[in-house]
This record gives sequence, C-alpha cells and structure tokens, in this order.
Amino acid sequence: MIIEPKVLKGFRDFLPADEITRRELLEKLEASFRTYGFVPIDTPALEYAEILLGKGAGETEKQIYRFEDNGGRDVALRFDLTVPLARFLAAHKAELNFPFKRYHISKVWRGENTQRGRYREFIQCDFDIIGSDSVASDFEILHIMYNTLRSAAGGDVNIHINHRGLFNTFLSRLGILDKSVDILRTVDKLSKIGKEETLKLLSDSVGDKKAEELLNFIGIKGSYTETLKAMTSAAGSGPDSERLAAIHNFLIDSGISDSVILDPSITRGLDYYTGIVFESFLAELPDIGSICSGGRYDNLVGLYSQDNLPGVGTSIGIDRLIAGLDALGRLKKVQTYANAAIACVTEASGGAYQALAELLRKEGIACEVFLAEDKLTKQFQSAEKKGICWLIIPTSENPLKSPLTLRDLQKRENREGLGIDEIIGILKG
Amino acid sequence: MIIEPKVLKGFRDFLPADEITRRELLEKLEASFRTYGFVPIDTPALEYAEILLGKGAGETEKQIYRFEDNGGRDVALRFDLTVPLARFLAAHKAELNFPFKRYHISKVWRGENTQRGRYREFIQCDFDIIGSDSVASDFEILHIMYNTLRSAAGGDVNIHINHRGLFNTFLSRLGILDKSVDILRTVDKLSKIGKEETLKLLSDSVGDKKAEELLNFIGIKGSYTETLKAMTSAAGSGPDSERLAAIHNFLIDSGISDSVILDPSITRGLDYYTGIVFESFLAELPDIGSICSGGRYDNLVGLYSQDNLPGVGTSIGIDRLIAGLDALGRLKKVQTYANAAIACVTEASGGAYQALAELLRKEGIACEVFLAEDKLTKQFQSAEKKGICWLIIPTSENPLKSPLTLRDLQKRENREGLGIDEIIGILKG
Repeated sequence: MIIEPKVLKGFRDFLPADEITRRELLEKLEASFRTYGFVPIDTPALEYAEILLGKGAGETEKQIYRFEDNGGRDVALRFDLTVPLARFLAAHKAELNFPFKRYHISKVWRGENTQRGRYREFIQCDFDIIGSDSVASDFEILHIMYNTLRSAAGGDVNIHINHRGLFNTFLSRLGILDKSVDILRTVDKLSKIGKEETLKLLSDSVGDKKAEELLNFIGIKGSYTETLKAMTSAAGSGPDSERLAAIHNFLIDSGISDSVILDPSITRGLDYYTGIVFESFLAELPDIGSICSGGRYDNLVGLYSQDNLPGVGTSIGIDRLIAGLDALGRLKKVQTYANAAIACVTEASGGAYQALAELLRKEGIACEVFLAEDKLTKQFQSAEKKGICWLIIPTSENPLKSPLTLRDLQKRENREGLGIDEIIGILKG
Repeated sequence: MIIEPKVLKGFRDFLPADEITRRELLEKLEASFRTYGFVPIDTPALEYAEILLGKGAGETEKQIYRFEDNGGRDVALRFDLTVPLARFLAAHKAELNFPFKRYHISKVWRGENTQRGRYREFIQCDFDIIGSDSVASDFEILHIMYNTLRSAAGGDVNIHINHRGLFNTFLSRLGILDKSVDILRTVDKLSKIGKEETLKLLSDSVGDKKAEELLNFIGIKGSYTETLKAMTSAAGSGPDSERLAAIHNFLIDSGISDSVILDPSITRGLDYYTGIVFESFLAELPDIGSICSGGRYDNLVGLYSQDNLPGVGTSIGIDRLIAGLDALGRLKKVQTYANAAIACVTEASGGAYQALAELLRKEGIACEVFLAEDKLTKQFQSAEKKGICWLIIPTSENPLKSPLTLRDLQKRENREGLGIDEIIGILKG
C-alpha cells in the first residue's frame, strides 16, 4: 500500500531553488549581525510547557503544540525565540558577557489559522541587546536593523519608531490609561482598518472627544524634530521624550537619521514593550507591512529569576521579506551553487573527472561532475536547466593530460583545445 | 513564583562559544557540499506519524515524539532526515533534477536513553545522490566524504568500505543467509564487544565452524586489491566484487585511494543498505568510532510512490565529530566574531562611534561598539574576555575627526595618535 506523501497544513517543503534563496538571505543577515559583534546561541525546539507558557497567555495557549512525552512530561514546541531567550538568560547569566548581544535564527511552531497566509512552521530571526537600558543600546538596535535590512533587501528601508512610555503619558493626560490595552489593540490595526473604523472603535471605548484627540496624536506627522515637539506638547515632556531626542542625536551622528521616522501611530499592539517600539518597511513596498518589528522591554527574565534584565530587540519576518523581495524582482532563483560542470563522456573516467573538478574547486570555482554517459546535448540541457554557466567537455579518457572543450552555456558557444589553466583563467576572469 | 529555568533531559542550550564552534563546522561542511553542486532542501520538523513510521519499525516507534495535534491529527517529530527525504522525493519527483544531489542539515528528535552520551535533540547532516545506481555515484559520495571530512577535521580521515551484496553472497555460500539479520547485528558490534565475544555469539547462532569462517571473512586485511581478492575467493566473483574493483579504479584515478580501505567487517548493522556500505574515522582518533557512515539503498521511495529510485548517501555525526576535534585540540573556542571594538569614552558619542565602526566593517573588519562609559581598564578586560584582538579608543567627542588610540589586546600595548585609515591598515595587515 502506498502512503500519500503529503505534508501537514501550514507546513512546507523547500525545494532547492527556494531553499537556496532563503539560505542566501539568512546568510546575509547573519553576516551583518556578526560584524556588530552579535553572537549566536541555540536552545531546544522542545521545552517544558510550563516554561513556554509562563503565566499562560490565552492566544498562545490555543496555538501551541503541546503534548505529553514518553516520560510523562508536559512539553511543547517553542512558539517564539523570546521566551526561550528569557529562560536561557535565567539559566546561564553567570556564563554570559553583558550587555549580551545575541542573535538566534531558528524554527518556531504555531498552530495558527493558515487562511491569512500564515504558516504553522516558520523561521524566526531575532536579535537583542540584554542587560542595558541605555540610549546607546536602543540606538544600536536601530543601526543594526538599518544596515542589516538594507544589505538583505538590496534597497532602502524606513524605520518607524515611537515610545510606549510617551504614548501612555498621553493616555494618562486624557485620563484613559486604564483603557490602554483596548486602545493599543485598536491603534495597532489603524493601517489595516482605516481611520474611520478606528475612530468608531475608539469612540465606543473612550467617547468621541478623546477618540479624536487620540487620532490627532497618532496622526502627528513631520520631521523627527517637529513630530517630537508636537508629541511633547500633547503628552508633556519627561524622560521618554528626552530619550527620543537623544536617540535622534545618535541617528544624526551616525548618518542614518533620514531613514528613521518618528511615528506616534506605531504601538506594537499587545506586546510586552515598555520603551521604544519600532517597525520597518521596504521603501518601495511599504504596503506589505513591517518586515522587522520590536522594542524595549523592562524585565525579560522575571518569570524564571529574581534578577532584573532589561533589553531591546527585534525580529525579522523572513517569509514576508522574501515575499517582498520576490515582488520587487530582487530574488535571483538559482538551482545550484555550481558555476561549472564536467560533462561525462566516458563513465569509467569518473575518477579523473573528479580530479579535474578538484583543480577548479581549489580555485574557488564550484564544479559539479556529471555522472552518466548521456548524449552531450542532453548534458547541455541538464546544465542549462540548473543554471550552470560553463560545461567542460573532456576529449579523451585522460582529461588531465589532453585538451578540453569549454562550452559557454549562456552563449551556447564552444571553445576547443584548452588546457585546464586556461579554463580556470576564463572562469575566474 | 519563579519557574525553574531547566531544559528537558537530553536537550541542550548552546552558549555562544559552543554555538560559534558548531556553526563554523557546519559552514565548512556546507561550503564543501556546494562546491560539488549538491543543493540544500528543507522539510517540516513535524509530519504525519503514518509517513514517518511507514510500516512501523519497532525501535523507532518507541523513540519517536508522537502526539495528536489540536486538529486531531496523528503527528510526530522527524527522527531522521532519510524518511522525510523519501517522502519529499515521492511528492516532488517531477520538479527535481536527477540524479538529485542534495544535502540537508537540520535537527532531528529521538526519545533515546541518554545515558550512553546520546542526545534527544541533535543536528543531522545528510548528503545523498538519488536516481543513479552507477559506480560513478558510489564513488562521488566517497570523494565528497573524503574532501568534506578532511576540510572539517583539519586532518586525515580513513574511509572503510564494504559491499552488503558481497557479504550476503558469502552468507549464501555458507548456507546461513536466513540468519543474516542476527549476523549483521552481531558483526556490527565487533569493535565494541571484541573478537571473542563476537565468536561466541556467532557460534550460538550458526555453529562453531561457520562462526569461525565468518570471523575469518570479516577479518580479511591487506591492500584494497589483496582484500578484494581474498573476499572474492571466499564469496565468489560477480557484479558486487566487480563494482568494488571499479570503485577502486575511480579512487586511484582521483588520487584518494590511499585513504579508502576495503574492510569486510563494515556491515552497518540493521540498516536498509543493499550495495556499498562505509564508515569513516579520524586518522588520529579512530577509537571514537565512525564520524560519517552510510551506503547504497535500492528503493528509497517505495512506501510513498510506485517509482523506483535507488540512491547512495551518508550522514555526518556532528556531535561526535566535534567531540573528536575537541579531543585533538583542533577547536579554537571564541566568544565572538568581532576582531575589533570601539571603546565607549562618552556615551553620548555613540552615534559617531557607530559611524567609526562602519568604516571598519566596510573593510571587512567585524567591529563591536561598546555601549557603556565604564572605566577603560574594565573595557580592556571585557574585550579580552571575549577574545577581541583590537580596541580602538577615541580621544575626543568627535572620533571621526580626531586622533585615536589603538590597543593591541594580546600584547596589551597602546599606539596613540592614529587616524582611522592607519588603524584599518594595521588591522588588515
């Protein structure tokens, strides 16, 4: 009996072209993190459910993959990389260097509704600075975001920032801080549901007048300085507005202030942030939504430790970023990393073909060896289909000691009578 | 109430130094696979249990993490990358280029007894050639193993090969082919339990005389040619011995025959191999066991498809390889990828420090920016602890326009009055 080879709903196979694309992107991100001195960690995919659920967030509890293992333990697959980071910090604080700048790129699992184009298994890419509540660390996260996203996106990105504390101060002034959960949830939907619907929802919650004041506040626009001035005049000045001003100075000194927009409509909904919050957008494709969001949180490890560790961090939406780059035509889809291949003229010469390929590999040229004595035209097609640029065709059973033919698979032209050194020269040139 | 931040038994956190070590190793392996034209794929961590268990292997069934998901599906975490590959091939055959040369590096989960130094979560690193039963593909797997393992190990490796078919022919000759499962299981333990115990177990199964003949067969030693001759004389010649001879010719032509040993004691126990089988060992540390094992299998996808796809492939034991390299003193443990850091003299200059660091990063020098105005001696210590080589100390609030001090953290020497270009020159030189 044949078992149907299907995958679970919301789960995906990645075929070579898509996996190469994804890995290239992740490698760019990782290379960027490393140049800033950020270091990788890893944590288990499976943890005690009690640790992952903590006090038990309602939404999370419904989505989590939780079960009893063979030893009767209540376990679950991680649904993000932040909770495991908190547990990791509590367990290993004495062994780490603080401020701890770490990145973590790994899979997480959520039994979400897949109809919204969401997946039940996806790669999360997080980077955080833990153990510092300085302006410098807020700024460094913005700076690494800016450079990393630009490098990965191959184009401009805009980062929108706000400060949760300043927003709350404004709510206090209006006397509606007790409704902040409702308000944050509504404001976070603004770009999706539009201004009118937002106003209606807010009016239901806090009355028409205050709803309008709220909308005016989150609608403030202008240069960073103008916006900060208007926000301060509405909410009052204090440490939070001073921090936003200080961050602006850092941004100017580092030369990236043009790409960072102070935007009071950014609130990050129900997340646990306490300081700055931010979202970021592809300049040419802002409508797909934020490709990298995050903020500052007060005390990450409180559930697992008496210590107090503030942090600031963010997460890149890999699937959305790839979809955006695809829409912008910025993904080159290749079927292989090989630049050249050795055609198979005599199967029994495979050992010598491999020795020939080694000469290219030693020069940094990735080279596949074809294994079967197919017709040459079939081998041309096979190489072209994979996107290989050059095919080296041996002309005798001893390819190391006799002339070779080099086929340019893009131009479909052959050059005959070449030595391997000449070929290496052409391929490297 | 504080939740104890513990991980499940058999699961591991990887702190930065260990994670950097592991990633460097995986990156070397992956770089090698790519130069051969092998391509990556990915499959879900979670699959239908029916697919992973197939006809239901007893051992596997006990070890697998299997549960009912929120949608009532019978699901399980993959316990290897071979079964998902088979399912993947059956699902995507029409979209792939054959012979399909793929690698897959990812986590798998087994609820094993952890007392033997085994883990319940570990990274598996597989590479296979699917869709060819040629000598050339057997040989290419050996060749890529040889180069990849040498590159990763930084030293010599020895590959021991045998042929399941030839071994079975020998069992037929002795009239004990029906006992092959028992015999394979016993012979596979030879290096662990010793010759005497093996002989005893075999005698119990097939009698004293045949047990001795078996031990003689698997004890054959000598050059590849001598060993093949002795094996053929004991088992008779045929396609299997001819294949071993052909592989030897490929090995000679490619110049790696000295590292490949024909060894009739290699049987790979209960695995599903049908052709060549192999194990490989660090030349200086063979006793830790095989770091990369595999073989040829007849029909991988039979459970999921009417097609017939033969293949040859292998799996590198990452944890064992790392343990071996550690024992050989070949792992350099570093705490960071950063080569340089900017000291923090005035926190408010953090924007300019970041701009300074960018000048180094653009030259390929990974450079961290320190965030807090600690005493310089404390910053020296912090940098040394991380293994950073160079600390750049600004001497004014505008470090881009005033002289810098460069501290060599290994020699603990300062050089004063340098421009950034001079510093880049020193760091690159």
